[in-house]
Amino acid sequence: MNIYLDHNATTPPDERVIEAMARVMRHAWANASSAHARGGMAAEVAAGASHALAGLLGCAPAEIVWTSGGTESLNLAIMGLARIGDTRGHIIASAIEHPAVRAPVRQLEREGHAVTWLGVDVGGQVSPDEVRRALRPDTMLVSVMWANNETGVIQPVAEIGALCREAGVPFVCDAVQAAGKTPVSFRDAQVDLMAVGAHKLRGPKGVGALVVRHSVVLEPVLRGGSQQKGRRPGTLDVPGIAGFGVAADIASDALRTGVFDRVAELRDALISQVLTRCHDAYVIGTEPRLPNTANIVFPETSGEVISQLLDSRGIVVSTASACAAGRAEPSHVLRAVGVPAEELRSAVRFSLGPATTAAEIDEVANVLPGIVDRARNTGFAVESGAVAPV
Amino acid sequence: MNIYLDHNATTPPDERVIEAMARVMRHAWANASSAHARGGMAAEVAAGASHALAGLLGCAPAEIVWTSGGTESLNLAIMGLARIGDTRGHIIASAIEHPAVRAPVRQLEREGHAVTWLGVDVGGQVSPDEVRRALRPDTMLVSVMWANNETGVIQPVAEIGALCREAGVPFVCDAVQAAGKTPVSFRDAQVDLMAVGAHKLRGPKGVGALVVRHSVVLEPVLRGGSQQKGRRPGTLDVPGIAGFGVAADIASDALRTGVFDRVAELRDALISQVLTRCHDAYVIGTEPRLPNTANIVFPETSGEVISQLLDSRGIVVSTASACAAGRAEPSHVLRAVGVPAEELRSAVRFSLGPATTAAEIDEVANVLPGIVDRARNTGFAVESGAVAPV
Repeated sequence: MNIYLDHNATTPPDERVIEAMARVMRHAWANASSAHARGGMAAEVAAGASHALAGLLGCAPAEIVWTSGGTESLNLAIMGLARIGDTRGHIIASAIEHPAVRAPVRQLEREGHAVTWLGVDVGGQVSPDEVRRALRPDTMLVSVMWANNETGVIQPVAEIGALCREAGVPFVCDAVQAAGKTPVSFRDAQVDLMAVGAHKLRGPKGVGALVVRHSVVLEPVLRGGSQQKGRRPGTLDVPGIAGFGVAADIASDALRTGVFDRVAELRDALISQVLTRCHDAYVIGTEPRLPNTANIVFPETSGEVISQLLDSRGIVVSTASACAAGRAEPSHVLRAVGVPAEELRSAVRFSLGPATTAAEIDEVANVLPGIVDRARNTGFAVESGAVAPV
Repeated sequence: MNIYLDHNATTPPDERVIEAMARVMRHAWANASSAHARGGMAAEVAAGASHALAGLLGCAPAEIVWTSGGTESLNLAIMGLARIGDTRGHIIASAIEHPAVRAPVRQLEREGHAVTWLGVDVGGQVSPDEVRRALRPDTMLVSVMWANNETGVIQPVAEIGALCREAGVPFVCDAVQAAGKTPVSFRDAQVDLMAVGAHKLRGPKGVGALVVRHSVVLEPVLRGGSQQKGRRPGTLDVPGIAGFGVAADIASDALRTGVFDRVAELRDALISQVLTRCHDAYVIGTEPRLPNTANIVFPETSGEVISQLLDSRGIVVSTASACAAGRAEPSHVLRAVGVPAEELRSAVRFSLGPATTAAEIDEVANVLPGIVDRARNTGFAVESGAVAPV
């Protein structure tokens, strides 16, 4: 039995993605910057992927800059905006942003920029009113994610986008978790820079994109050859880009045909069964949420221990972000949402995928109460030692 | 007929690389940072690749930082060394470095660092004596490539490494073109930071590595999660890394079994046939050179036109670096080597691969004189217009 409920960490690549990549590696492997016909063929493959991704994200194909993933995209967006010229300015970012936003913003703070970190309400949402109040004449950028990776809570991006556009401030939106799970429109939400990563939506690892609105000027983060108009040098990873394109088409289809409505039903069934059987458990964050995510606190337990015990039963979940794994501090997101200090380490994130079945959800709901009890009895001491299989 | 002699731009991925990547995408696709067993499995795959690459490069597996390619590796090396602390210092780099070194060094120059650009002799080599003379008490790094991408000329890296080690100055070496074509040893050459990219040695695009000597402190270029000890955040591209590992093993075997000795023989045969049949042609750069590279000047012709005419016959070569394609300036490498101004656009780079055959070389040598004549008669005017097939 193997049940994977950690799709927010990464997703299994779709078989069509794997096959497309192998095909491109066999037949269109040339350097897309090469002047010869083979180079042109590779460049055409990349152009096709731009169309597919633009279709998913509601942007123009020419607005897409290919990167190595969400982290690089967000670094390019934030560093790229803030490092134009020598002036220091003001940055607005939410307290629940991913480390790939928080870390570059903190770096800019060290370099002399002022930063306003916006809190969230108990439901896990940033308030557009707070964004409005935080805007200053020297604000260089606003960064609020489309949906949070730990709670799944969808942010009021269209309202924030409208505010930013009116104020003439670039709006950076991390759509890494949202893209492919919920409809996302770069154009409609008036985003200026949007980051996505392929491996969160059944595409390959090592490939991402930054959507850059035509008029936005960016200072590159990496410097080198003249690829991608100098915005992002380095030989284009055409096989990976092709895989991302296929994944984007599959995701567009899935959204169109209601695959994620079914995922939401399963997620809701999981929540309702868990809350019934584990009487003091509670869900973090309110609607609107990603259809696949449930972050549940089991008071007086260690989420780490629950995860390990589930893992030993072939059920894969996580406590928070895989990107923060190995770090000592508890989740900044749960803290921002107002989870009490003593429960910050008691959360477990269940993130479903399009292939998750009702039988899997039932199995998890059946196994979980016993494991939660065991985690409660074993206590936090287990966390530092080995956990024997149940 | 399709003859690919542009292996310095990129190489066709080996079939074993493609199959390994597909296998990892099917069976070890989890996030290598995840705490669960599947995450551990992915991390083990990456660790195996570290061993394979360390074997090729003569470094320790733990010294490898995975990146998105040679360009990112070189940015991390150069920016990472120069941006520690707030002080400005002095940088030494050769005039024939790849744009992925030149561009970050120029950026650092704009930020107030002093730069000494070292010329090369007519053979295309940097002189260790010049490195010695250029060293200053405030020198922060020396950057000299292992082998040049346009001429193939191998640089005296061991001597430069010894000089740098003695002076206590970090030595950055771009081994992107050298690795897998000629023996490279990080340890023996006393390199501190060495950059490589998978797609130059029949591995996947979008994956590279920076080898970082244990004691070297680096400021990261990208900021985000805690992956790779914070030196390079972002979800590990384990399938790509696995592909790189397989390619590294194949390259180690090829070097051990003399595959590139055969390549050198073919390359020498090409040169000798071309120089015999095209009387005023000459080769740029002297030995030691990469076994696969021949950069030949055909005076009073346009290299661009020759490339296009060859392309129309199914023979793929290039004029210079694919990374500089589309740019107006002629090659900085040929200029540095002392090619006369009027011949800077008359060079063609032939770069062979392990699968190149004697029949292919004969075919190229047979076709080339007619094409060179035609290019000479057609003149430079053709360059701006369409070239009809021969």
